[in-house]
Amino acid sequence: MPGPKQERAQKTREEILRAAAEVFDERGYHGAGMREIMKRAGVTLGAVYFHFPNKEALAQAVMHEQPATIVPSLRSEGLQRLVDITLVWSHKLQSDPLLRAGVRLTSEQTGYGFDDVTPYRQWAQIMEECLVDGLAAGDVRTDTDVHALAEFLVAACTGLQAYSLLASGRDDLPERARTMWRLIMPAIATPHAAAGIDVSEEREAAVNGLTAGSGR
Amino acid sequence: MPGPKQERAQKTREEILRAAAEVFDERGYHGAGMREIMKRAGVTLGAVYFHFPNKEALAQAVMHEQPATIVPSLRSEGLQRLVDITLVWSHKLQSDPLLRAGVRLTSEQTGYGFDDVTPYRQWAQIMEECLVDGLAAGDVRTDTDVHALAEFLVAACTGLQAYSLLASGRDDLPERARTMWRLIMPAIATPHAAAGIDVSEEREAAVNGLTAGSGR
Repeated sequence: MPGPKQERAQKTREEILRAAAEVFDERGYHGAGMREIMKRAGVTLGAVYFHFPNKEALAQAVMHEQPATIVPSLRSEGLQRLVDITLVWSHKLQSDPLLRAGVRLTSEQTGYGFDDVTPYRQWAQIMEECLVDGLAAGDVRTDTDVHALAEFLVAACTGLQAYSLLASGRDDLPERARTMWRLIMPAIATPHAAAGIDVSEEREAAVNGLTAGSGR
Repeated sequence: MPGPKQERAQKTREEILRAAAEVFDERGYHGAGMREIMKRAGVTLGAVYFHFPNKEALAQAVMHEQPATIVPSLRSEGLQRLVDITLVWSHKLQSDPLLRAGVRLTSEQTGYGFDDVTPYRQWAQIMEECLVDGLAAGDVRTDTDVHALAEFLVAACTGLQAYSLLASGRDDLPERARTMWRLIMPAIATPHAAAGIDVSEEREAAVNGLTAGSGR
């Protein structure tokens, strides 16, 4: 069990991460300065460097924090869980600085000379776990290569946000995510399950805690 | 009909574009200089600025040149044409500087402060035309929203290359493209057509002119 000192250190680390995310989200990697992040977090520069040896380490930590920002407001399992995660992701990318900065840094990283595939792998693992559960529940077609499908879905979502960012400043991202599911669901879900998986605008609102919607 | 002067100007423009693409591909937008592009193209700096008022205009022209780089070596129509285009695209992204630079600049552009959705729209239009033909030929399911599907496929391919770049330096991109088609084809093609659409490694080789393969 962590003592009070470890808890304080953990809290400081989180404050630095969130401040860094805000600055990266607003200014990009090159525009962000360690001093501005320090001021935004309300900590000393020494505290920043204690947790993160340099700006690159801080950017990497922000990139790896993406999955932790996604918590659907409804319980769900398997294929519906996977859908719900993308509906929360597409919605929170409008407003959550930690997720926005993580995605921005991940997308733009090759321009900074970074080469970090970890954020993609993290998402692929989460998606694959949902698909494995969906297979066991009989929602996912038995002939599905769940590993390959998870890899593809991560790529698809990556591209959806890139296109949506330029097409609409990400306003249409939730709609694009729901459209994706409508288009490809017949190839993924068993005919029996397909009708029960909810990819509606109402579901999107409910999993984002915007309505009183109930779980499956 | 263009006279010799216009033809020369057009040829110079193409030489500048190709030289610019090589430099953008190697060094990214910020690392590329107009003088290096001039030297690479074997033209004067005046000739570069005659065709492109600044580096941003040159980068934009390279971004918009992507579709022109894709010419499948086999004749095909509709859904097979769409598959073939992606198989050529995934292959040429390994080697064609003009395509590589166009994709790199398009992907990284938000990091440079650009905001140009045109390359995505160009690809979506090409894909939608293939899908419309596929609908008419009875290859694409009659209930398909071809506009939405084209928009999704552009996004999916965008993400495939981004993920593949970090996962394998794009080595696995052709395989990822073929896997995408195998995964989603049941949702797109009519059952009758699905078996006839060729997404194999052999097709990939043939449309890239690497074997003597014959058209459908």
